[in-house]
Amino acid sequence: NATAKAALGRATWKLIHTMTLRYPESPTADERDALNSYFHLLSRLYPCGECATEFQQLLKKFPPQTSSRRAASLWLCFVHNQVNERLKKPTFDCAHLDDEYDCGC
Amino acid sequence: NATAKAALGRATWKLIHTMTLRYPESPTADERDALNSYFHLLSRLYPCGECATEFQQLLKKFPPQTSSRRAASLWLCFVHNQVNERLKKPTFDCAHLDDEYDCGC
Ligand SMILES: Cc1cc2nc3c(=O)[nH]c(=O)nc-3n(C[C@H](O)[C@H](O)[C@H](O)COP(=O)(O)OP(=O)(O)OC[C@H]3O[C@@H](n4cnc5c(N)ncnc54)[C@H](O)[C@@H]3O)c2cc1C
Ligand SMILES: Cc1cc2nc3c(=O)[nH]c(=O)nc-3n(C[C@H](O)[C@H](O)[C@H](O)COP(=O)(O)OP(=O)(O)OC[C@H]3O[C@@H](n4cnc5c(N)ncnc54)[C@H](O)[C@@H]3O)c2cc1C
Repeated sequence: NATAKAALGRATWKLIHTMTLRYPESPTADERDALNSYFHLLSRLYPCGECATEFQQLLKKFPPQTSSRRAASLWLCFVHNQVNERLKKPTFDCAHLDDEYDCGC
Repeated sequence: NATAKAALGRATWKLIHTMTLRYPESPTADERDALNSYFHLLSRLYPCGECATEFQQLLKKFPPQTSSRRAASLWLCFVHNQVNERLKKPTFDCAHLDDEYDCGC
């Protein structure tokens, strides 16, 4: 069921991009650990087996960047573009991240 | 911006309900740890401060149940209903979880 898989993907990207864009500008060591662990656990628990395997490989090749909000959000934009490329989707311009994701919080 | 906050909530519930419904029927100790940690990290990193605080309190009061797919998915359904109650939304009948969440995987 490709429609359900795509809807799950869209929901997940929305959550994690918004999360990196609200991540602290100057995170503590503890906050850096939390974000790094979060992405590794998500890649294990992600409920689409093929996507989870792919995501784990991406994390190995491109480990989460957690030193600042900017680093984390640009890293995730890059990783999402890697997935886009594999799925033959257009590349997203990471300069437009802030306009796209607003958590309303 | 209430619309953005609601859309973020919907996306997050979709991911995590689908996740618990794909969680192993008989998880290993390591898989149980992973799910438990995932929820605690999500409650710290969730990009709506008021919601994150609320979620952390719920996790303290009702710790994640990780012993099986059924336990985990019913626990999350219960927790979501606690949030529904606070927000004056209708209670969801947890018997319909399987019909509602299909990851297409
Ligand atoms: C970790 C992960 C791994 C996945 N692996 C697979 C897989 O192996 N196979 C598979 O079929 N599907 C996979 N998916 C799902 C896939 O990435 C898409 O979510 C799905 O195909 C729906 O695509 P979409 O065109 O609606 O846009 P999505 O890729 O879901 O993106 C949603 C929106 O985000 C914005 N966006 C696009 N690119 C970026 C970017 N680089 N940075 C920020 N915002 C951006 C755009 O506005 C876009 O409409 C995966 C999803 C996730 C979260
Ligand atoms: C952890 C967390 C904490 C939140 N805290 C707050 C907060 O403090 N304040 C705030 O304003 N918003 C909060 N939100 C957002 C809020 O829960 C809703 O997501 C948002 O208001 C949109 O509501 P909705 O009516 O579209 O349905 P949602 O509650 O988003 O539910 C989406 C869909 O899931 C199904 N569903 C409903 N209940 C259940 C259930 N018990 N089990 C399984 N499926 C169900 C229904 O089909 C529903 O349409 C939180 C979200 C999350 C993920």
